[in-house]
Amino acid sequence: MERDITDRDHALFEAGIKLGALYHQFVGTPLNLETLEGLEKTIEKSISVQPYLEKIRITINRDMVREKLGRFGYCGLEGKMLEVHAEIVFGSAKAKVGLRYDEELDYPLMYIEEISQRR
Amino acid sequence: MERDITDRDHALFEAGIKLGALYHQFVGTPLNLETLEGLEKTIEKSISVQPYLEKIRITINRDMVREKLGRFGYCGLEGKMLEVHAEIVFGSAKAKVGLRYDEELDYPLMYIEEISQRR
Amino acid sequence: MERDITDRDHALFEAGIKLGALYHQFVGTPLNLETLEGLEKTIEKSISVQPYLEKIRITINRDMVREKLGRFGYCGLEGKMLEVHAEIVFGSAKAKVGLRYDEELDYPLMYIEEISQRR
Amino acid sequence: MERDITDRDHALFEAGIKLGALYHQFVGTPLNLETLEGLEKTIEKSISVQPYLEKIRITINRDMVREKLGRFGYCGLEGKMLEVHAEIVFGSAKAKVGLRYDEELDYPLMYIEEISQRR
Repeated sequence: MERDITDRDHALFEAGIKLGALYHQFVGTPLNLETLEGLEKTIEKSISVQPYLEKIRITINRDMVREKLGRFGYCGLEGKMLEVHAEIVFGSAKAKVGLRYDEELDYPLMYIEEISQRR
Repeated sequence: MERDITDRDHALFEAGIKLGALYHQFVGTPLNLETLEGLEKTIEKSISVQPYLEKIRITINRDMVREKLGRFGYCGLEGKMLEVHAEIVFGSAKAKVGLRYDEELDYPLMYIEEISQRR
Repeated sequence: MERDITDRDHALFEAGIKLGALYHQFVGTPLNLETLEGLEKTIEKSISVQPYLEKIRITINRDMVREKLGRFGYCGLEGKMLEVHAEIVFGSAKAKVGLRYDEELDYPLMYIEEISQRR
Repeated sequence: MERDITDRDHALFEAGIKLGALYHQFVGTPLNLETLEGLEKTIEKSISVQPYLEKIRITINRDMVREKLGRFGYCGLEGKMLEVHAEIVFGSAKAKVGLRYDEELDYPLMYIEEISQRR
């Protein structure tokens, strides 16, 4: 058993927390094409106030929103509309992670893109 | 039994929906004093895309946020931090409603302020 | 202008609050066919602790959940999966309201079913 | 730069996702002392439907809930009321993680308890 917890471990743990948090906080938020960009910025900023978050970029899929605007001209944010790229730094380790809609799986997939280590 | 549903009834029903929605959508959102104003605007806009909402003003209590900023410099949005004033119009009826923290009850109180009717 | 707020007004306002709240609190919750019934009960109970709620019945659409179970065997609760019937009593007034998926509008519709008044 | 992503990395990433998700999904849920236990079970089950989750135990702090029950006899779930222990298994790696209220920091702290590796 390895009990020693490294910077790399913490970076990945914190990266997961950020993605899980933003997904479940904001899914359901009413939006339309006019408010979409402001909502992207707000999600970015709201996650950026949390520790260890170095960079984040949120993109909400315009085409999916457009398709879902019904008679009332708005829809609720769905997980599959979200594309996220984030970088988390903990000590000497940096984790790049993301969330994207996987069409084949029909699933909003959270994934690790890259882990790097400062010497 | 009265089965006839009036514009006034609808205005109040819709007003309640908006307050319940915004409260449970956004409570928990991470924020600090820098992101507070953007979050206020985003909540306003997100509720404004829904039908029958004519006006809305969201204020997040700066003092409460300041007190809650801990070692990590942010906190989660709490219901008691929210002050809301909203006007809902349905047909000939307008409902003014609000949400404010009632200190005595220690409770985020949703209330009807006024109902008016166009002739 | 009518400023007098009646029991009927309050019943409808409270009814709207309950529907808006449950929708935005629980949309996004992970579920599968095994946990579906427990989630229905939990939503019912969580809204029942709030004032003025007399009855509530939540049904999550099994067919929609079944369709959405992907490779990972679960999905997130969507608004269109929800059917709700609720009765709110405020003083002498009772409001029966609901939420159902309107297929034609492709929209989770909140509606007033009936308002009655005790003499 | 290390680009190779290990089971251990995935286990920690997935562990973070689960904690972030449950926190932001359920904070705000209305509860009282009668519904508390059912809510604990529902949160456990809702997170257990997600991949890689092997064990989870949720405890909601009874004393904090009791203190917050106001005139209306219920309160909203707060992050500080939650204690979580979870085990995530990804391939050969197991991560034990938790969430507990840190009184000194006045902060709901998510932490890595232990990482182990099957040979």
